[in-house]
Amino acid sequence: MRFLTYKYGEKTFLGVLTEDGAKVLELSKILLGTSSKTMIEFIDGVSNADLDAVREALDGDADHKGIPLAEVKLLAPITRPIHDILCVGVNYKEHLEETKRWLGDENFQKPPKSIYFSKRAVEIIGPGADIVSRMDLDEELDYEVELAVIIGKKCKDVTREEAEDVIFGYSVFNDISARTLQREHQQWSRGKGLDTFSAMGPVIVTKDEMPFPIEVDVISSVNGEERQHSNTALFLNDIPGIIADLSAGTTLEPGDIIATGTPSGVALGMKEPKFMKPGDCVTVEIPQIGKLTNYVV
Amino acid sequence: MRFLTYKYGEKTFLGVLTEDGAKVLELSKILLGTSSKTMIEFIDGVSNADLDAVREALDGDADHKGIPLAEVKLLAPITRPIHDILCVGVNYKEHLEETKRWLGDENFQKPPKSIYFSKRAVEIIGPGADIVSRMDLDEELDYEVELAVIIGKKCKDVTREEAEDVIFGYSVFNDISARTLQREHQQWSRGKGLDTFSAMGPVIVTKDEMPFPIEVDVISSVNGEERQHSNTALFLNDIPGIIADLSAGTTLEPGDIIATGTPSGVALGMKEPKFMKPGDCVTVEIPQIGKLTNYVV
Repeated sequence: MRFLTYKYGEKTFLGVLTEDGAKVLELSKILLGTSSKTMIEFIDGVSNADLDAVREALDGDADHKGIPLAEVKLLAPITRPIHDILCVGVNYKEHLEETKRWLGDENFQKPPKSIYFSKRAVEIIGPGADIVSRMDLDEELDYEVELAVIIGKKCKDVTREEAEDVIFGYSVFNDISARTLQREHQQWSRGKGLDTFSAMGPVIVTKDEMPFPIEVDVISSVNGEERQHSNTALFLNDIPGIIADLSAGTTLEPGDIIATGTPSGVALGMKEPKFMKPGDCVTVEIPQIGKLTNYVV
Repeated sequence: MRFLTYKYGEKTFLGVLTEDGAKVLELSKILLGTSSKTMIEFIDGVSNADLDAVREALDGDADHKGIPLAEVKLLAPITRPIHDILCVGVNYKEHLEETKRWLGDENFQKPPKSIYFSKRAVEIIGPGADIVSRMDLDEELDYEVELAVIIGKKCKDVTREEAEDVIFGYSVFNDISARTLQREHQQWSRGKGLDTFSAMGPVIVTKDEMPFPIEVDVISSVNGEERQHSNTALFLNDIPGIIADLSAGTTLEPGDIIATGTPSGVALGMKEPKFMKPGDCVTVEIPQIGKLTNYVV
């Protein structure tokens, strides 16, 4: 199932896409008892019976009842994160090599443990939204396509074997970065945390549609020119490993977002970096989930 | 004024301390119209007229109406942060020197710009609460006393001159850290973000009681032995500079917490580091705000 958050008229709704992707069904019309106003509340409260009811609605005469997708405005499926987004740094070998060159540090190695940092987002932007560049602060504006894991259950000290159980689903994430700020402040959260620097969507695909091990393409392009194209099969640390690491001693909550790292092909790795600039259009894509296009202003 | 969050019986209340610090007045009894359930809601909604009303109540016959402080259980004034806590790394010169030795890197310099990182806290612990050590994950458990700045207004691109205007008040913060995790994961958020690793309290002092420039002692002790004793006058980057940096391109919101960095004297800086262990008692203190004691279990 593909869950989403959308505006229709002036109001915001939670919805689910029909099988053919042409229509949106409003969740509160399927789950009459639900009082969830946000996707995080929905994820936190949803039962297996609820999910079954949604599945039945989709299998039924859903296509007669929904609103055409073209008539709604999609937002990020989670518009405001419950905590800063949990991010994995340098989780593909080729990106490790380009990062090493960028840092000018031949000694920069795959760390004995994964690099984790947090990304602040007062709001996560969705499909079609503007990325507000701040050329006055940093001209090195970069993109990073990532598979986002959405946590479904409050959990802690999760083992590799339990990892799939605590997941609700997956989305496509663009970890937009101001590289000068990222480098100058040494820790990365500052250069990653500017307003509109987190984009996610178009939907959250439930985990049953992407069973472990997850081997999906992650692709990005700028103005139609492909920049990144890799596969999550090439992760240095896989999803069970990441969840085991991040939950060791730390409670994860329903709606928590884990961005699992980006492959090579970002601007910082190029001999002559093609950073994004106002007027550019950036698309990140995972075919099993969808495409997310944003415009740099 | 000194605002606090407390439990009385089974319920949680927002309150204000009387001048002599002996009693707690319940905020909802002073501000009859308030519907704030959390300190963040209170900070977000409070007007100057509200603050005047609280001041008047304190100047009046407050001592006859409050509950003795000894009868309530203090929580952290903000029990759940609105975003991950914004932290300044290495903001005192002596701590820079000890960090350099710890990293074994003679080349580690005061960065051209301050180091900022985020600290996840599902819950912030308050006075008397347990710090749950995870000796199975990391035996290098360290303390860091810090002045916490509490943001009062939604703001962005704040200038140095405007910084004091966007502040609500100040508290004492203990940035508890698992040093092995901090070092091994390179970025610091992982080793800083374990459950119970954020302690704050006992109160939030409003900014009118600590006008700029803020020159207050920051002190920590473990089992009664003083470990850190410095003064915020020795900041490498001062509060206006920190707020200008963090708000450049990034929206700050009412209730956001900025931990302004710790002076030298933490365990990692010692030749034979005295890390905390179960059974220890750690106190962080800023005399103008109060003392915050926690117990390692």
